[in-house]
Amino acid sequence: MSLAVAEKKANLDSLRKELKARGVDAFCVPRADEYLGEYIPAHNERLHWLTGFTGSAGMAVVTARDAAIFTDGRYTVQVRRQVDAEHYQYRRLIEEPPLEWITEQLGAGSKVLIDPRMCTLDWYQRASQILADAHIELVLSTDNPIDHCWSARPEAFIAKALLLSETFTGEHSLIKRERLGRVIADLGADAALIFAPDSVSWLLNVRGRDVPRLPVLLSCALLERTGDLHLLVDERRIPEGFHEHTGAGVSVVPEDQAAALFRKFAGRTVLADPGTANAWSQLSLEECGATLMASDDPVLLPKACKNAVEIAGAQEAHRRDAVAEIRFLAWLDAEVSNGRYHDEALVSDRLGEFRAQGEHFHELSFDSISASASNAAMCHYNHLDNSPAELIPNSLYLVDSGGQYSDGTTDITRTVAIGEPSEEMCELFTLVLKGHIALDSARFPAGTTGTHLDSLARQFLWQTGRDYDHGTGHGVGAFLSVHEGPQRIAKAWNATALSPGMIVSNEPGYYRDGAFGIRCENLCVVREADTTSSEVPMLEFDALTLVPFDRRLIDTSLLSGQERAWIDAYHERVALEIMDRLDEQSDREWLGAATAPLE
Amino acid sequence: MSLAVAEKKANLDSLRKELKARGVDAFCVPRADEYLGEYIPAHNERLHWLTGFTGSAGMAVVTARDAAIFTDGRYTVQVRRQVDAEHYQYRRLIEEPPLEWITEQLGAGSKVLIDPRMCTLDWYQRASQILADAHIELVLSTDNPIDHCWSARPEAFIAKALLLSETFTGEHSLIKRERLGRVIADLGADAALIFAPDSVSWLLNVRGRDVPRLPVLLSCALLERTGDLHLLVDERRIPEGFHEHTGAGVSVVPEDQAAALFRKFAGRTVLADPGTANAWSQLSLEECGATLMASDDPVLLPKACKNAVEIAGAQEAHRRDAVAEIRFLAWLDAEVSNGRYHDEALVSDRLGEFRAQGEHFHELSFDSISASASNAAMCHYNHLDNSPAELIPNSLYLVDSGGQYSDGTTDITRTVAIGEPSEEMCELFTLVLKGHIALDSARFPAGTTGTHLDSLARQFLWQTGRDYDHGTGHGVGAFLSVHEGPQRIAKAWNATALSPGMIVSNEPGYYRDGAFGIRCENLCVVREADTTSSEVPMLEFDALTLVPFDRRLIDTSLLSGQERAWIDAYHERVALEIMDRLDEQSDREWLGAATAPLE
Repeated sequence: MSLAVAEKKANLDSLRKELKARGVDAFCVPRADEYLGEYIPAHNERLHWLTGFTGSAGMAVVTARDAAIFTDGRYTVQVRRQVDAEHYQYRRLIEEPPLEWITEQLGAGSKVLIDPRMCTLDWYQRASQILADAHIELVLSTDNPIDHCWSARPEAFIAKALLLSETFTGEHSLIKRERLGRVIADLGADAALIFAPDSVSWLLNVRGRDVPRLPVLLSCALLERTGDLHLLVDERRIPEGFHEHTGAGVSVVPEDQAAALFRKFAGRTVLADPGTANAWSQLSLEECGATLMASDDPVLLPKACKNAVEIAGAQEAHRRDAVAEIRFLAWLDAEVSNGRYHDEALVSDRLGEFRAQGEHFHELSFDSISASASNAAMCHYNHLDNSPAELIPNSLYLVDSGGQYSDGTTDITRTVAIGEPSEEMCELFTLVLKGHIALDSARFPAGTTGTHLDSLARQFLWQTGRDYDHGTGHGVGAFLSVHEGPQRIAKAWNATALSPGMIVSNEPGYYRDGAFGIRCENLCVVREADTTSSEVPMLEFDALTLVPFDRRLIDTSLLSGQERAWIDAYHERVALEIMDRLDEQSDREWLGAATAPLE
Repeated sequence: MSLAVAEKKANLDSLRKELKARGVDAFCVPRADEYLGEYIPAHNERLHWLTGFTGSAGMAVVTARDAAIFTDGRYTVQVRRQVDAEHYQYRRLIEEPPLEWITEQLGAGSKVLIDPRMCTLDWYQRASQILADAHIELVLSTDNPIDHCWSARPEAFIAKALLLSETFTGEHSLIKRERLGRVIADLGADAALIFAPDSVSWLLNVRGRDVPRLPVLLSCALLERTGDLHLLVDERRIPEGFHEHTGAGVSVVPEDQAAALFRKFAGRTVLADPGTANAWSQLSLEECGATLMASDDPVLLPKACKNAVEIAGAQEAHRRDAVAEIRFLAWLDAEVSNGRYHDEALVSDRLGEFRAQGEHFHELSFDSISASASNAAMCHYNHLDNSPAELIPNSLYLVDSGGQYSDGTTDITRTVAIGEPSEEMCELFTLVLKGHIALDSARFPAGTTGTHLDSLARQFLWQTGRDYDHGTGHGVGAFLSVHEGPQRIAKAWNATALSPGMIVSNEPGYYRDGAFGIRCENLCVVREADTTSSEVPMLEFDALTLVPFDRRLIDTSLLSGQERAWIDAYHERVALEIMDRLDEQSDREWLGAATAPLE
C-alpha cells in the first residue's frame, strides 16, 4: 500500500469510526461546500481529504463496510488514477446515482447522514423521497463528521473583501438593491434569499479573494423588498469603509447568528431557488416560520445584462488582455521558428506573465488549458495533471485562458500552427472559424435564445458529418465568474432571451481523438443593431476579444466573400485598437503581419 | 336588428332559459366537440350555432345577464364582423381568459356548467382550481344544454370508414398494435387511451369522411398492452370486412356503452394525455376504478416516422400533386399574359380542378389560401370570408394548398409574379427563398430538433431587420392531418428530435401589411445522410414537393454560388421527375422554361 493510499485509508477508517459513534449507517460526501460553487477553498475540500479525488464534481458515499465514488464522464480516467480501487467502487454519477446505490446497500431501518449545507433543496427533497420509499431514515446534521476527523486541516484563508468602485460597477449598491427589492415585491414576496456569492458580491459591489479564480466574497444574504440586506458572512472579511461603500440598509450577520436572522422572517414570504441554494438555508427559514416561494435567483438577469460602465470596462480589459495574448503569440512564433519547442507548462506560464503585467489584473479567470497536439482533443485537459507535453512540429497548439481584471473578466481560445500543419487541420480550422463567423455575424430579434443560434456555429461542421460535444457559448461576469448564467448558447434548451449587455463566449471547436483539437473563442457583448432600416428591432454581437486568428490555418478556398470580409474587417479592427498599445517593435511587426488582409 | 342577429339572439335566449331550468349561472361553449380536433362536423358546431363565429378556436361564456366571446389575435377582426356586439363582449382568449371573466361576473356559491367531453383534463383541472378558489361550483354534464335548444340541427353525416390497404400503409394493424402494446408495457401501464381520431385511424389502417379535410374515422380507443383494441365508435361507420382488415383483437364498442368498457379497466393502469384527451374520458376511467398515468399519446411518434411504403407513397402523391400545381401555374401565367385577372376564388377553384384529376385524390387537405396582393399579408386569409379580390397587375399572388390522396397528404405554397413585380418584392422573395434553401440544405446530427434549425430559415431576413410571425415547419401525416405532431420547426421549444421518416414543411415567409405576402413552402422528409464520410451520423431533408419556384422573383445578385446551384439542381430534378407526366405540350414548354438554369 503506497503512502498516499495508506493515508486515505486512515481517513476512511476515522470517518467510519465517527459515523459508528453517531449511530448512522452511511454518509454522503459531495464535492461541495456550503456555497455550492465550482471553486472551493482548500480547507473545505472534504472529498479530496477523504478520497484524493481532485475533479470539480463528484460524490463519495461511505457505509460501514463499503464505499463508492461517483463521477461523471469527464473524470472516468482521473478517478481511477486518484482513488484507490481497493477501498472505493467506481460508479457513474448520472447513470448509477448515489441514492440508488445506497438503497441497494442498506436495508429498511438504516440511517443515512447528510450535511444539508452541501446539497440543494431539490437534491435533498429527491433524496428524502427515494430513501423514504426504501424505509431508510435521512438524518441531517451541519456538524460535518469529516470536520471531526480531519486533523491537519488547512486554516481558512480569510481575506478582507475588496470594495469595487462605481467607476467599475456603474451602479451604486443602494440603487441595485432598491431595484431588486421592487422585483421581489412584484413577485409577491417580502424578501429573497440571495444564495450565490457572485450574486451577493454584485449586489454589494464587493469582491473577494476567498477562492481562486472566482473573485467573490463568500457569503449569502437576505434581501428585503425595501432594498435592505442582511449579509451572512465571516465578519473578519468585512473591511473598513464597508458600510460607507454599500450605503444604508446593509447589516452584517455573523454566520453563527443565522438562526436569529432567519427568525426575523417568521410569517413572511421568502423567494429562494431550490435548485441552487443549499437545503440548510431554506429548511432553516421554514423552521423559523418563513414561507418559501420557489423562484430563480432574481439577481441573475440584472447581473447578466451589463450596464454601460461595465461594458466599457469589459472592452478596456479585453484590450489589455489582447496585448498580453498578442505578445504571447508573437513570442511563441519566435520560439518555435528558432526551434524551441517548449512544454505546455512553460508556455502557459509565459502567457500568465504577459497577462500579469496588465493594469487592474488580479489573477487568471480559470486554470489555463495549454494543450499540445493530441492533448487538445481532450476538452478538459489540464497540463498539470501529468507531466506537461512539449509542442510538436507540424501540429496545432490550443490555448484557452483568461484573466480577472477590476474592470472585466476575459476568456479567449486561440489555436496556433506549430510549424506546418496538415491541409486537413487547415480545412477543419476553417470550418470551425466559419461557424464562429456565422454566429458572430448573426442578427436576431428580441426573444431569441442561445438555443436558437447554436446551430449557426455548427452548420459547416454538420455539413461535413462532424460536430463538437460541448456548448457554443456561456455567459461571463464583470470581474466575476467566467461561467455565469442565465443565458447560454447550446443545444440544450435555454429559455433566457439574449438581451443587450449580456456577455457570451462564441467558441465552436473540433476535436479528433489522439490527434488534435481546434477551438476559436472570442467573448462578445449583445447590443442593439442599427435599427433605422429594421422593421423589427434587432440585436447583434459585438466582439470584445481583439486577437487575430491564425492566418496560417485558414483555407481561403472554403470562405465565402462575406466570410473573407469578416476576417479582414476583424483583423483591421484588432490592428487599429491594439497596435498602439504594443511597446516592442517586434510585437508590432508580428501584429501587422497577423492582421494583414487575406490573400 | 338584422335577421341574423335576431336569430342568434333567439338562440342565446333559449340557452339562457335552459340554463335557468338547470339551476346553473353560467355555461362555457368552446369551439370544440368531443374529439377536440381542429375540424368539426356541422352538427357539432355549437359555438357557431350560438354566436355565428366561424373561427377555428374560441369560446363563449353565457351567464343569465351577460355573455362574452373569447378569441385569439387571429380573429380580432373576424369576431367583430360575425358576432353581435350588443349581446356579446369581445375578450382576448389568452390575455383575458374565460375563467377569470367568470370569477369577475359571478359571486361565491354560483354554479358553472361545462360539458367535460369538450375540454381537456388539463383545462378541466385548471378550471376546477380557479373556480374553487372563488368558491364557485363547477357542474359537469355531458347532456349538453345546446343540444336541447338547437331545433334545426343538421343530421350527423355518417359515412362508412375506408379500409386503407397495406400497399398504402406498409404495416398491418396487428403489427402496429403489438408494437404499441410493448411501448405501453415498457411504460409500466396496462393500456392506453388513444384519444385522437388520427391516432386511432393510423393504428387500424382506416380512414373516414366524417369531417372535411381530415380523413379520419371519428372514434377513440383503448389499446391494451397485448395489442388488443376496444374501439368506441358509432357502429354505423364500421364497413363490411372491417375485422378481416384490422386483424384479430379489435372489438367495436358503441359509444353509449363506454361506461361498460371503462369498467373493464378497474384496478388497471391506463396511459392518457391530459393535455389532449377530453376530461370526460379520463374522469370516467377513474370513476370506474382505473388508475391514470399521464403520458403523451404513444402513437404520435411511430405515426410521425413514416415507413418506406408511406414515404414512397408520399413521393408518388407529391409527383401527381406537382402535375396539378404545374398545370395550374402554366394556366395562370397564360391567363395573366392574356390580360385575364381572375378573382381569387376562380383561380383557387381551377387549382382544385387540376388536383381532382389526380389518381387517389380524395379532397383538399385544408381550405386553400388564394391571396392576391395585400390579402396575402394576412397569414390566415380565406377568400371565402369576403368577396374574393381580383389579381392585380404588377403584384404578387400567393397560393397555399394541398390534397389528400390515398398515398399521401400534400401542402405547398408558391408565390407568383403577376405582371412585373417591384425590385423590392424580388429582393424579399429572394431572402425568403434563401432561408428555405438554408433549411433544406441543412445536415444535422441525431437529437437535433426543429427549434435548433428554425433560425437557419430566418437568418437572411433577420440580417435585414425583418422576420415572420409564424413557425417555419409543421409535421404532415400520411393521408391524415396536414398538421401533425410531435415534431415542429419553430421558435417555441419543441423537444422532439427530427427523425428519419418524419415529414415536415419548410415554409419561411415575409408579410407586409397592406401590400403583399410571400411564402416558399415545400414538404420534405427527414432521411439519413450518406454517412460514409461522416464521423457523426447525420440526417438531412429530401424535398417531396416538386414544383418550380418563380424565377421571375429571384434576384440572382443576392444568391451565393451554393444557393444558385441548389435552385438549378432542384429545378432540374423537378423537370426530370415531372416533365413526362405532363400531357399538354404547352405545359411541357412552361415547365421547361420554369426549370431552366438561372441566368
